[in-house]
Amino acid sequence: MESLLNKVLSIIKPSPEEDKFMEDVSNKLIEKIRAFLKGIDAEPLIVGSFAKKTHLKNTDIDIFIRYSKNYNKEFIEKNTMEIGKNVLERYELKYAEHPYIHGFYSGIEFDIVPCYKIEDPGKIMTAVDRTPFHTEYVLKNLKESQRDEVRLLKQFAKGIGIYGAESKVNGLSGYLVELLIIKYGTFIDTLKNVSRWKSKTVLFLDKKPAVDYDNPLIFIDPVDEKRNVASALSRENYSLFVIASREFLKYGNIKFFFPKEPEGDVENIIKERNSNIIHVSIKRPDVVDDILYSQVRKFANATFNILRDFNPTRMSYYVDNERIHLIIELLILRLPDVEKHRGPPIYDQNSEKFIEKWRNRSLSGPYIEDMFLYADIKRKFREPREIIENYLKDHSVGKDIDKFKDTIKVEYTIENIDKKELLKFILNKFPWEI
Amino acid sequence: MESLLNKVLSIIKPSPEEDKFMEDVSNKLIEKIRAFLKGIDAEPLIVGSFAKKTHLKNTDIDIFIRYSKNYNKEFIEKNTMEIGKNVLERYELKYAEHPYIHGFYSGIEFDIVPCYKIEDPGKIMTAVDRTPFHTEYVLKNLKESQRDEVRLLKQFAKGIGIYGAESKVNGLSGYLVELLIIKYGTFIDTLKNVSRWKSKTVLFLDKKPAVDYDNPLIFIDPVDEKRNVASALSRENYSLFVIASREFLKYGNIKFFFPKEPEGDVENIIKERNSNIIHVSIKRPDVVDDILYSQVRKFANATFNILRDFNPTRMSYYVDNERIHLIIELLILRLPDVEKHRGPPIYDQNSEKFIEKWRNRSLSGPYIEDMFLYADIKRKFREPREIIENYLKDHSVGKDIDKFKDTIKVEYTIENIDKKELLKFILNKFPWEI
Repeated sequence: MESLLNKVLSIIKPSPEEDKFMEDVSNKLIEKIRAFLKGIDAEPLIVGSFAKKTHLKNTDIDIFIRYSKNYNKEFIEKNTMEIGKNVLERYELKYAEHPYIHGFYSGIEFDIVPCYKIEDPGKIMTAVDRTPFHTEYVLKNLKESQRDEVRLLKQFAKGIGIYGAESKVNGLSGYLVELLIIKYGTFIDTLKNVSRWKSKTVLFLDKKPAVDYDNPLIFIDPVDEKRNVASALSRENYSLFVIASREFLKYGNIKFFFPKEPEGDVENIIKERNSNIIHVSIKRPDVVDDILYSQVRKFANATFNILRDFNPTRMSYYVDNERIHLIIELLILRLPDVEKHRGPPIYDQNSEKFIEKWRNRSLSGPYIEDMFLYADIKRKFREPREIIENYLKDHSVGKDIDKFKDTIKVEYTIENIDKKELLKFILNKFPWEI
Repeated sequence: MESLLNKVLSIIKPSPEEDKFMEDVSNKLIEKIRAFLKGIDAEPLIVGSFAKKTHLKNTDIDIFIRYSKNYNKEFIEKNTMEIGKNVLERYELKYAEHPYIHGFYSGIEFDIVPCYKIEDPGKIMTAVDRTPFHTEYVLKNLKESQRDEVRLLKQFAKGIGIYGAESKVNGLSGYLVELLIIKYGTFIDTLKNVSRWKSKTVLFLDKKPAVDYDNPLIFIDPVDEKRNVASALSRENYSLFVIASREFLKYGNIKFFFPKEPEGDVENIIKERNSNIIHVSIKRPDVVDDILYSQVRKFANATFNILRDFNPTRMSYYVDNERIHLIIELLILRLPDVEKHRGPPIYDQNSEKFIEKWRNRSLSGPYIEDMFLYADIKRKFREPREIIENYLKDHSVGKDIDKFKDTIKVEYTIENIDKKELLKFILNKFPWEI
C-alpha cells in the first residue's frame, strides 16, 4: 500500500522547484496588486490550497483582496476587476454568486477575488469572506506531515469523481478534505472511518453541533459553527465515497486515483439490453456552470419523473457547447390507450365531482380500489415526446432553460448522443472498475 | 322516495300467508327434532332472520340445537347430523369452520346447526354459540316498525353487492344490518349517516369500545364487547357502501336494489383500450366457499403483484365448476432484456457481497442511486407466463389451490374467459350505474 501511495504522490505533488517558482511569481503579483491599492484601505492575501500547502500540481492560485467594511460592494468589485485587468493576461471576468477575475501571470493561473475584512467569520458580508479564516485555520491545525495525506485524499476524490463542491460535481471541497485529514489523521485512517459511515454522519472538531441539517454528511465548520462544510455533498457522492473507501482498502489499486476511460462497442451493448434509449436535448443557456448545472439537474429530474409510466430505468445528462443532453432508458416506448386515473378518496368532498365527471366519459368505472375512486380513461399522450412537450408548456424547468423551451428535441434514437457519454451511461460502472 | 321504498318492500317482503306457512312448517320440524332429543340435555331453537322477523322472501330457516356443555364437540356434531339426516330431505352435510346440515322440509330450506348452551356470550365454546344471543338481542331492541327498514337495507346491500359476511362477499352480515337500523333508526337515516363516514368509523350501542381493530368499520357487538360485528367488511365494500349511500340519496333509483346485467360488445370495448388482457386459470379445489374464496383472493393478489413490472391496471376473479379464473389487464405484455435490480443500501453489511456478485455479470453497474446499490441485469423472465409459472414453483398460493399448481394456464387471449365476467371486468361500473 505504501509504495502505491508514494507512486501517486510522485505524480500529483509539485516539486520543490515548482513550488519555489510559484511562490516567487505570486509574491511578485501581490506586490503589483499592492501598488494598485495605494490610498485604499485594502490588503491582498494568498489563500486557498496554495497558501495552505495542500495544492496539487499545476494549481490555480487564489488571491483575495480584503477591503475595509467601509467600501460598498459595487466599489470593491469594480476596483478588483480593474486591478485584475491591469495585472493579468488573458483575463476573464467571472460572475458567479460572487464576481471575480481569472487570468494568467508568468504562465500561472490566478483568481483575484474581492472580499471584506471582517473580525468574526460567523458574520460574513459576502460568500467568500470566510475563506481567509479557513486558510488560517488549516495552516494552524494541519501538521506539515499531513499535507501529503490531504493531497492523496484530494486525488482519490478526483479519481472517483467527487472532488469539488460546485454544482457540477456536488462533491467534497478542498477545505472539507483538509478537515477530514485533521479529524482522522491520515489518508488511510480517513478511508477506514468513511468505509464505516452509515446513512448519516455528523462530524466536528471543537463543539458538538446544536443544529441538524438535512445532509448525509455534516461537518461543522470550526470557524463558524452554524455552517455545514459538507452541505454540497449529494447522497450519491456520499455513498460513492463510502463504497470507494471500502473497495480501495480491500483492493488498493492506482485506478482509484487515475481511472481509465471506458471502452466498448456501444451499439452492441445496447442491443443486448433490447430496451429503448431516448435522447432529449435543449439549447444551453449562456450562464456560469454553477447556475447551469443546478438547472440542468432540475430539468433532467423533471423529465425523468414525468416519464414514469414508461418504466424508466436510468437517466444521465451532459452539456456540450451547444446543448444540454439527457440520455434516458425506458422499458416501454409506447403505451396503450387506456390509463388508470386515480381520483380522490371516497370520503373526500370532491368524490362526488369525480363521479359526475367520469360517469359517462370513462372507458371503465368510476370504481373503487382500497378507499380511492378511479376511472379508466383514454390516455392523452402515448409517447415520451408528447408528454415532454406538453409538460414544458406549463412548467418551469429552470429560469434560464425555460427561455429555450421551443428548442427541445426528443429523439427515439441514439445517433446524436455523444458516444463516450453514451458508453459511460450504458456501462455505469464505478470509475475504478473500468 | 317513499313510493320507491314501498315498491321495493312489495317485492322483497314475505306475505302474511307465506310467513304463516313457514312458521307452521318450522314448528312441526322443531317438534320432530325434539322427539329425537329425548334423553339428551339439549333444546332446538329457531334463530336467525326468520326468528327475528327481518327475513326476505324465500329465506332459509336456521334451527340451532343447543346442547349442555357436558357433551363433547364430537358428540354434538354427530348427533345433530344424525337428526338432520332423519328429518330433512335432500340433505347435504356442510363442513365449514363449524359443521352443520342443510336440507329441505315441506319444500322449505333449513340449516340445522349444533351449538352449546352457554350463559355468557363473551365465553363461547364454538363460533356459533353467540347466535341465540344475537336473536334475543334483536327481538328485544328492534322495534316492530323497524323490521321493514332492516329489509330495505338488506336488499340495498344485496343490490350493491355487499350483502353477506362470508369470504366470497366480505360484506355486511344480517345481524350488522339489524344493528345499523337499531343505531340509526330507519333505512334512510342509516344511508344519511353512512354517506358521511370517513376513512374509519367506530359504532357501538352500549359501551364505548376499549379495543381498536384494524377494520374500516367497527361495530361493537352489544352481546360481546370484545367482538367487532363488522370485521368481515373489506375496505372496498365499506367504500362502496359510503358511495352508494350518497348516490342513492341523490338519485334514488330502484336499480340500487335490483341492478341490471351489464350489456355491450365486449370485443369492441377492449379494442378501444388497446391494452393486454390475460387469462390465468387453475383447477378449482373441492372445498367449501369460505375456504375457497379466501384462497382465491390470495392466489389472485399474489399473481397480480408478481406482474407489477408489466404495469397491471386491474384484476378480477371468478370461479366456475371446473376452474378458478383471473382476468388481468396489463399495459405491457413483453419486457426488454434489461432489468434494474436493486441491492442493499451502501452501509449494509451485504453491500460488499452484492458488488462481488454483479461486478462481472451485470449489463451495467454495480452503481449507486440515492443510498442503494443497483445493477442492471439480464431479465430472467420476459413474459407473464414465465413469471407466474416460476413463482408457483416455490410459493404457496393457498393450501388447497397448491395441489393443482400443475393445472395452471396463462393465456394471452380472452377467448376462454366467460363473456359476462369479462364484460363486468371491462365496464367495472357501480352496479346501480349499469
